[in-house]
Amino acid sequence: MQLSVLDRILAAELQARRREVAAIDPRLLPQVDRLIAFTLKGGKRLRPQFLWWGWRAAGGAPDGDAVHAVIQAAASLELIQASALMHDDIIDHSDTRRGEPSLHRVAAKAHADEGLAGDSDDYGLSTAILLGDLALVWADDLFIEAASAIGDLTAALPAWRGMRTEVLSGQLLDLRVAVEVGVDPQAQIRDAMAVNRHKTAAYTVERPLHLGAALANAADPIVAALRAYGADIGIAFQLRDDLLGVFGDASVTGKPAGDDLVEGKQTALLATARARLRPDLLAELDDGIGRVGSPAQVARLADLIAGSGAVAAMEEQIAALVTAGLTALDEPLLDSEAVTALRELAVLATSRVS
Amino acid sequence: MQLSVLDRILAAELQARRREVAAIDPRLLPQVDRLIAFTLKGGKRLRPQFLWWGWRAAGGAPDGDAVHAVIQAAASLELIQASALMHDDIIDHSDTRRGEPSLHRVAAKAHADEGLAGDSDDYGLSTAILLGDLALVWADDLFIEAASAIGDLTAALPAWRGMRTEVLSGQLLDLRVAVEVGVDPQAQIRDAMAVNRHKTAAYTVERPLHLGAALANAADPIVAALRAYGADIGIAFQLRDDLLGVFGDASVTGKPAGDDLVEGKQTALLATARARLRPDLLAELDDGIGRVGSPAQVARLADLIAGSGAVAAMEEQIAALVTAGLTALDEPLLDSEAVTALRELAVLATSRVS
Repeated sequence: MQLSVLDRILAAELQARRREVAAIDPRLLPQVDRLIAFTLKGGKRLRPQFLWWGWRAAGGAPDGDAVHAVIQAAASLELIQASALMHDDIIDHSDTRRGEPSLHRVAAKAHADEGLAGDSDDYGLSTAILLGDLALVWADDLFIEAASAIGDLTAALPAWRGMRTEVLSGQLLDLRVAVEVGVDPQAQIRDAMAVNRHKTAAYTVERPLHLGAALANAADPIVAALRAYGADIGIAFQLRDDLLGVFGDASVTGKPAGDDLVEGKQTALLATARARLRPDLLAELDDGIGRVGSPAQVARLADLIAGSGAVAAMEEQIAALVTAGLTALDEPLLDSEAVTALRELAVLATSRVS
Repeated sequence: MQLSVLDRILAAELQARRREVAAIDPRLLPQVDRLIAFTLKGGKRLRPQFLWWGWRAAGGAPDGDAVHAVIQAAASLELIQASALMHDDIIDHSDTRRGEPSLHRVAAKAHADEGLAGDSDDYGLSTAILLGDLALVWADDLFIEAASAIGDLTAALPAWRGMRTEVLSGQLLDLRVAVEVGVDPQAQIRDAMAVNRHKTAAYTVERPLHLGAALANAADPIVAALRAYGADIGIAFQLRDDLLGVFGDASVTGKPAGDDLVEGKQTALLATARARLRPDLLAELDDGIGRVGSPAQVARLADLIAGSGAVAAMEEQIAALVTAGLTALDEPLLDSEAVTALRELAVLATSRVS
């Protein structure tokens, strides 16, 4: 699947929906255009790629009648992602996303610039809630249309149902574990890994592969192999994300340096550092998390985490997960070209710098 | 359709989804149980009833194999409604819903009561965003499953796509027109009616009827008649709601007395009053809207609106819309028992006190 084709299909779908909204009231276009721009700007398009290679791994043809609909199904994942990011950025109070102001900030600024009545922040938040909802229902519409066009919808529905419930449950769990008090570091590591499994791994790798395979009516061993690969690579993806959230280069990630430290995000990396630091340094780390602002403060916390040995431990864990995930690809029923692509995607997803 | 059957089917679906969430992490159950309780408590169940009578109006059988799935499809509308209310209550800063604290307030209170870390209001808002998302995707899952079970999904999809895009566009439009400045009363009336059409009428009456009819593979004249009825009765429903939002009995509506005045909601009723008041009284009304708090202040604004003649004008408009809507039921292809039920529902929806 060429990403340019994915982009074209996604853009065509969004243009069609834009026309529906324009027919309701053209004054809605600035808001909807923000949703469209946000979705099309996109990120790494990992989820669509995993769906595509799930399809191919299960013997789905690389060309032919079904390809357009398979790419539509893949594109629907970008709409889910747009929805998740818009709502996540509200929840996390994130001012930036993909190197630009987050959508609720953009809407708030437009409100202020136009001199509209009422509170700009309120308006931005409300707009981002509703645009996130719109992206979510459009994702459903696109997936259901695409899957119906390919064939028997019932094969794909369990994965579709599972994915959306898992990612939202993972987000709720993330919210819940973040507010628990007096949790020891080992429990924090377990909690972070549970969030990683549902909020990220299932949603980013495992279920997209499952969806693609289900659209190709895959046999059970194929689905099992892809899901095993997906669970491991997906968690490794998140552990890499955690490292980038502390040590990533802001000019590449599109997020401020040390953003996770500023936001006080409860990651496996942080929990691992907490489990390893001696009491005085642990106290310093805990005092700073979620409260630091200046580059020097952020750098000090990053040094504490690196000095704990947590970074090396995370790198080891990522390597072990990648090895385990790649082993799952030994399943002989998998298409060999897809196996090659999935090996490359595993590296891309877990060794990235952005 | 008996409402007890609807409740049973909705409860069974929610229990099944609850088990999926419990398997992810049992700590999520308190949050999901709040969503379930909120959805099952329900309101008037108007949307499911309209879907059912759309099915029956188009010749769908009142008993037989398809009935269970038709009621499942009807139940999915209650999940959409739960989602819309949860997100609406955030947007409107509403502390109460259905006579109880709104869901974001309930979650915030639970956070505070449990002595959890972080800000309780933030936690409540984040929880309500995610639970609203969950209700929205569960609605999709239930509707798609039900419609697939009945027969050809493609007949029902356009109405399903249309309904969700319309209601969210209507909400976005509501948000947008509320912040415009220097709008004259006539334009405000037009804006309020446009919001009523998409946010309420399409979503509450017209599209539920359309969905039911589409599930029964209705001929075009049937769909057209039901949609014409739905557009009129739906707008009349909202105009009644506007009157209740100012003059309703709090013990019956489950909302504080004069809630729309306190919230500063831009309704057709308010715009009509603004168009009719002499300048000094208009200034008094405008000064008070969205700012009043005490019962005496609220009562004074309600008196200004009633004194303008806007209430009588709204009652006339409701009566005219009901007459026009009922005329659409003259279409001879409609099932006669359904026509009787729709006549009753028109009265129920537009003459209600809660």
